[in-house]
Amino acid sequence: MRTFRETLHTGYEQMLHLQGDPLVDRESAFQHIQVFDSVANGRVLVLDGILQLTDRDESAYSEMLVHPPVFEHGAVKRVLIVGGGDGAVAEEVLKHPGVERVDLVDIDAEVVDVAKEFFGHVHKGAFDDERLTFYPEDAFEFLGRTAEGTYDLAIADRPDPVGPAQSLFANDFYSRLQSALAGRGVGVFQTGCPFYQGDELTETHKLLQGVFQDAGVYVTVVPTYTGGFMALTWGANGLDLGTADASSLRRAVEASGIQTDYYNADMHAAAFALPEWMKRLLG
Amino acid sequence: MRTFRETLHTGYEQMLHLQGDPLVDRESAFQHIQVFDSVANGRVLVLDGILQLTDRDESAYSEMLVHPPVFEHGAVKRVLIVGGGDGAVAEEVLKHPGVERVDLVDIDAEVVDVAKEFFGHVHKGAFDDERLTFYPEDAFEFLGRTAEGTYDLAIADRPDPVGPAQSLFANDFYSRLQSALAGRGVGVFQTGCPFYQGDELTETHKLLQGVFQDAGVYVTVVPTYTGGFMALTWGANGLDLGTADASSLRRAVEASGIQTDYYNADMHAAAFALPEWMKRLLG
Repeated sequence: MRTFRETLHTGYEQMLHLQGDPLVDRESAFQHIQVFDSVANGRVLVLDGILQLTDRDESAYSEMLVHPPVFEHGAVKRVLIVGGGDGAVAEEVLKHPGVERVDLVDIDAEVVDVAKEFFGHVHKGAFDDERLTFYPEDAFEFLGRTAEGTYDLAIADRPDPVGPAQSLFANDFYSRLQSALAGRGVGVFQTGCPFYQGDELTETHKLLQGVFQDAGVYVTVVPTYTGGFMALTWGANGLDLGTADASSLRRAVEASGIQTDYYNADMHAAAFALPEWMKRLLG
Repeated sequence: MRTFRETLHTGYEQMLHLQGDPLVDRESAFQHIQVFDSVANGRVLVLDGILQLTDRDESAYSEMLVHPPVFEHGAVKRVLIVGGGDGAVAEEVLKHPGVERVDLVDIDAEVVDVAKEFFGHVHKGAFDDERLTFYPEDAFEFLGRTAEGTYDLAIADRPDPVGPAQSLFANDFYSRLQSALAGRGVGVFQTGCPFYQGDELTETHKLLQGVFQDAGVYVTVVPTYTGGFMALTWGANGLDLGTADASSLRRAVEASGIQTDYYNADMHAAAFALPEWMKRLLG
């Protein structure tokens, strides 16, 4: 039996049993790309040995990066996605009819090619939506030539801070992204699973507090991102995420008619509650 | 390097790296008991090959089985713990000064012996508390001779429905436990990680709805119980758990002065929010 073993964390591994042979197993110019079907979690995308997406739980990640900021902002029109070459986050963004423009910046065009071929059931044609433009380039450089105040929402669907993504965790990245956001604009950042990657949360939160007017953390639970809670940090130019009135939020979510697998108004509010041990990581 | 591999779920495994040699590796009259120190998760208790407790995340389990029902009930005096031979849940219960009596019923006295020797830092002397009595017997039989209305709170800190614990998942168990509860009494039941064990949640919730006046589900996130959310089902005789007024709850938690690693008033409220996919399992 074929297996995939992930050794992301020191002293802890997870192993998925595969169904059949791997569908993709090759080196792009930037990273090692693997796609396979698994017994327990459906189709799986792996980059540089780290699990990125599985059919069964990608909703907990992509929905929670998108719907909390979109519903709380209330008028998101222009969206930047950093990374996200698999199209899962773009698909959630494009569910919102008010969104007029989505710029997806992923350094590795081969990930997008692989997603188009093997994950159509996840991105559901997002790359064919005329509102979306794909920029196959480094997001840090892209932000260097982005005009101030361009975006209402920026989502860092970045992998872990190793390999080609390291520039997406530095202070300069957050500064450029902050400038690219309009008033009330908000950035949301994948910040690892703090049970095993606590320093990543502590450091990111400190950087965001220095760069943005408002900053904070909310969580989601993606089973194959081992370690329980995943931290989604955020920074905003005058929008205090997590403070929306519960009944207004519920009405907005219901009125949207958007179908989800994980997100709902209750989960939105609940995501801003943090366990004691995680609060301590925020100092 | 020594490792522990857990193969609880079909097609999915987790592996912990060990530090040194196992501390316990033996058969009791009922099950295989293992204790070891791990690189990533501290000391670990394993029963019949299934991870029961690790130093690093047991709080997310034991605190969430105890504090939500105790704070919402408001006057818990008499508590039954079914299973729980490691003493972690008992320790949380005994933090509440209003608790007068704790009956801990675990079929396997060897688990208690092992806990006393190797998990003193977890149970913190709970077995020496004069309020606690340990009954080394089958909980289903124990409940058969328990007078009606004996307990304010019953906690089923049961392992998965295999081996000696199978009788703790049947309709008769819930009926006996319901009778053993006083008015406003509440039972809370470990019900697996529904991402991989969805049927266990569906079936348990249906049984509880048939037996109790009130029934529902809340969640916790215990990283080494793989699959993201763990479901804690509950049934009560006239107490609708999860509906406590937020500010009253916050005041009660703060006034208690109880120290926690996971639980707080925000996490209490958040635990009753369920993702869409889990709500579908409840029919």
